[in-house]
Amino acid sequence: MTNRFDFKINATDGKARTGVVQTPKGDIRTPAFMPVGTAATVKAMMPESVAATGADILLGNTYHLMLRPGAERIHNLGGLHRFMNWNKPILTDSGGFQVMSLTDLRKLTEEGVKFRSHIDGSEYNLTPERSMEIQKLLGSDIVMCFDECPALPADRARINESMQLSMRWAQRSRDAFGDRPGYALFGIQQGGLEKDFREESANALQDIGFDGYAVGGLAVGEGQEAMFDVLDYAPDQLPKDKPRYLMGVGKPDDIVGAVERGIDMFDCVLPSRSGRTGQAQTRMGAVNLRNARHKDDPRPLDEMCTCPTCSNYSRAYLHHVIKSGEIIGSMLLTWHNLHYYQELMLGLRDAISKQSLREFVSQFHETRTIGDIDPI
Amino acid sequence: MTNRFDFKINATDGKARTGVVQTPKGDIRTPAFMPVGTAATVKAMMPESVAATGADILLGNTYHLMLRPGAERIHNLGGLHRFMNWNKPILTDSGGFQVMSLTDLRKLTEEGVKFRSHIDGSEYNLTPERSMEIQKLLGSDIVMCFDECPALPADRARINESMQLSMRWAQRSRDAFGDRPGYALFGIQQGGLEKDFREESANALQDIGFDGYAVGGLAVGEGQEAMFDVLDYAPDQLPKDKPRYLMGVGKPDDIVGAVERGIDMFDCVLPSRSGRTGQAQTRMGAVNLRNARHKDDPRPLDEMCTCPTCSNYSRAYLHHVIKSGEIIGSMLLTWHNLHYYQELMLGLRDAISKQSLREFVSQFHETRTIGDIDPI
Repeated sequence: MTNRFDFKINATDGKARTGVVQTPKGDIRTPAFMPVGTAATVKAMMPESVAATGADILLGNTYHLMLRPGAERIHNLGGLHRFMNWNKPILTDSGGFQVMSLTDLRKLTEEGVKFRSHIDGSEYNLTPERSMEIQKLLGSDIVMCFDECPALPADRARINESMQLSMRWAQRSRDAFGDRPGYALFGIQQGGLEKDFREESANALQDIGFDGYAVGGLAVGEGQEAMFDVLDYAPDQLPKDKPRYLMGVGKPDDIVGAVERGIDMFDCVLPSRSGRTGQAQTRMGAVNLRNARHKDDPRPLDEMCTCPTCSNYSRAYLHHVIKSGEIIGSMLLTWHNLHYYQELMLGLRDAISKQSLREFVSQFHETRTIGDIDPI
Repeated sequence: MTNRFDFKINATDGKARTGVVQTPKGDIRTPAFMPVGTAATVKAMMPESVAATGADILLGNTYHLMLRPGAERIHNLGGLHRFMNWNKPILTDSGGFQVMSLTDLRKLTEEGVKFRSHIDGSEYNLTPERSMEIQKLLGSDIVMCFDECPALPADRARINESMQLSMRWAQRSRDAFGDRPGYALFGIQQGGLEKDFREESANALQDIGFDGYAVGGLAVGEGQEAMFDVLDYAPDQLPKDKPRYLMGVGKPDDIVGAVERGIDMFDCVLPSRSGRTGQAQTRMGAVNLRNARHKDDPRPLDEMCTCPTCSNYSRAYLHHVIKSGEIIGSMLLTWHNLHYYQELMLGLRDAISKQSLREFVSQFHETRTIGDIDPI
């Protein structure tokens, strides 16, 4: 344990790195996948179970928590960790991304964003300063800058204007965050698919100085090829000695490709959201338990998987509970999916340590190709 | 462990008894509360968690399981225990009660009941013989006779006619069940609120001979006072040396009153169903977590309760997740409620052992009167 925030790289393999983000609340082994706990819960999971899958850190959503139950309320109740019974690190987003998606309900100015709650229509004002305040009230260990990003495709003028605004907001976030030993503030690189804007954004952020750097504005509709094109250069524009976080990514093969390109941290709702709809991620690909082919199948989802779902339940059972709308279907598939993601990260870390990432990635793609895939 | 079904009474206090129902799959400490696992799951609970609350046995529903996923399918998959990952005893109802509630979809004859599935409208025929076959296919440890019962109030002629039919079906159930060492068949006393019919039914069942006896046809709208009036004599009409099971009961004070009157086994959906809607049962009464008074309350639901919910979460958190429709709200409140029910049974067993049931019951009612009760 440490009383300050730090990042140590233990091994590299090509551009890929493995190491540890140290925080007073515990270590985060990188490359790391952060399950999403939107409204102070990783949906359908007890926090002990999330930890049992191997997760070192959760992501919480500023937007959802500020609306309900409210940041001041959570603070008065002892902070988000205590509120949701999770004593390991928490990263919170800034609320910016989710507010931007309220297209008809928001008004953007230099100052920040005015918006109406999707729950009860009441009016809120979110600025870099307020976002820093909320994330502090929540007790977040890794705080994200308040930023703005356009949906892609967008024209260069719009992307540039947005990136420049985000960089001014990054400075205001830094100023508002202040000096908080043991807590980290991450900057967010913007610039869409434009290499020169990405470079300019990376330089602006480094001039300000952050504890880690996110690649933002991707996984917003551009597709994997375009995303990988950006990841071929974007991580290199950021400091080598700080963690690099690719926000909102992704599918297993997105993560593998991004790790190869030098990314250290990820978050995504996919494993939990798809679990609730009966979709499982396995070594062999995506399996849809709603498919009738599973209804008499005594085999587990994945015979090699050691999660409680695969250890104790047949595909026939999973098919039955998902088709019947039983809560345990969401519980079992979310658990399996989060376990699968953490096993994938463990495999990536191990392969990088042994300089065998290329073989690991070949094996990863080969196993998925032999296929146990349902049309979804 | 035993290889046969047996019942031993260890102590009595007034009419109340405490003992053990022995089965090859494990002991059932009585008085026992059986959580309901309708569709091969106790809703919102992992089976390990159900066992951790102290449950020795689950109830499964023949009606639901025969429709989906089907009794033959469950048999081919190794039986209900393996299917749902529960290796302790299971009691199954006969399907009769639930089929009767399909008022517009069923046709009752001497032979049995023809009905249409509420899921897809397909036609089924349920008879005493088929009910025995289904419960055997499921691998049920305690099988219930196929019976029929009217909603109350009903006139004496209707109650008598129904009871006589149920007694003929009891004989057919017994004949069809055959000789299955290690498995038990329970008869079901009928007769509504009529003492003479109850007596006649009890005698008919004892002439046939069963491993245990249920008091059926109660908790169908007659109210607690009328139910207790029947329980003042009905258990005495049944054999002393066999377990007595009050079907579908009930609220905590129903259970306490029925144990005082000589009942050994209970099942009810209340703790799990009410948990999913935000209602908790505690020593102090029923608490509705949706009530705004809880939203800033850092206290647990019950400071004396040792369940994971009360150990780790505030009322404010429970209010938040229930109001937000988060699955963990159902998980945490179901767990608490089942734990509360099992603690109540443990307290009753302990009090009977020590001949202090009267003090236990006084304390039970007094604690509930001081009250922490929400209008529900």
